[in-house]
Amino acid sequence: MFPDSLRNLIEVFKYLPGIGDKTAERFAFSILDLDDDQVKLFQDSLGEVKSKIHHCLICNVLTDDDICYICSDDFRDKKVLCVVEDVKSVFLFEKMGMYKGKYHVLDSLISPLDGINPEDIGIDKLLDRIHNEGFKELIFAFKPSIEGETTSLYIKKILDGIDIKVTRLASGVPIGADIEYVDSLTLERALTDRKEII
Amino acid sequence: MFPDSLRNLIEVFKYLPGIGDKTAERFAFSILDLDDDQVKLFQDSLGEVKSKIHHCLICNVLTDDDICYICSDDFRDKKVLCVVEDVKSVFLFEKMGMYKGKYHVLDSLISPLDGINPEDIGIDKLLDRIHNEGFKELIFAFKPSIEGETTSLYIKKILDGIDIKVTRLASGVPIGADIEYVDSLTLERALTDRKEII
Repeated sequence: MFPDSLRNLIEVFKYLPGIGDKTAERFAFSILDLDDDQVKLFQDSLGEVKSKIHHCLICNVLTDDDICYICSDDFRDKKVLCVVEDVKSVFLFEKMGMYKGKYHVLDSLISPLDGINPEDIGIDKLLDRIHNEGFKELIFAFKPSIEGETTSLYIKKILDGIDIKVTRLASGVPIGADIEYVDSLTLERALTDRKEII
Repeated sequence: MFPDSLRNLIEVFKYLPGIGDKTAERFAFSILDLDDDQVKLFQDSLGEVKSKIHHCLICNVLTDDDICYICSDDFRDKKVLCVVEDVKSVFLFEKMGMYKGKYHVLDSLISPLDGINPEDIGIDKLLDRIHNEGFKELIFAFKPSIEGETTSLYIKKILDGIDIKVTRLASGVPIGADIEYVDSLTLERALTDRKEII
């Protein structure tokens, strides 16, 4: 029904997450309304992101350079290392803006059911950094999950005997959330971790 | 915060209709997970749709060729011409599948408020076809709107004296719609155009 070139474009738009036939068609039609320079920019940007982006040699975050802007920044707090499960977490923290320390992105979280064992999460690189860079605090910023807990406990155990404070993000009731919609595990954690009002 | 190449890609994804920062970021990250061939295909498809697609010389529908597959199809009913306001309407009709006649896509509907006058809708091309191709029926398939009504009436008046039946799509209550949610104009039309049960 559609001309070949339009049909091909509709198909590639379906590579994008959550995009089905209808939206892909809408996207493809919208490309016809772009001018030639914009389409060229679209093509070039796709190619560049694929050829230029790679993981920072130190912390694994995505970067166009060998070393990311965070690792190269001498003004960041070199005493604190925030360990995250994926690159997106770093961007989330940076958007929030309050954290001024360094990051380390693991390859994955430990998940034996998915065949991901402790040796698969890139822990050697993390341990090297801990030994060489002299951090005073390690913050685990994983999503609250069995895998996150397992990974935190595993790394904490390995670090036994090393003089470093190990913390995790606070769990509890989200700001602005209606307490009746909070699941009972979260509520349980919020109660256990309750803070004195001073 | 994002590497340049990733930020550029996020920006171009915002060209797409209805796509804001968050979804553009999600799309850009998803490109990193595609393999090189898929990204190449994405780039090529964008370029091809821009270089190959144009309007059919006869009916204005989008095609990769000079003449679209509908106009070139000798098995279509040459007696009926469905006049639509945009290319997407043709694809909608073709998806529906029941209509077997020909199409003609106007450049626009008449809309004096937007500065679009009768001479701007590409009516000469339509009149040429009506004179040369000997259609027996003209179906106006515009969306129900002032502009659609105006355009229908205008063309109908020009065709005065020419032996051709002029029809429009039925308006009324959509199948499956709850009658209490139908607007009163539609209900009025549905009542006026009521059909005898036989």
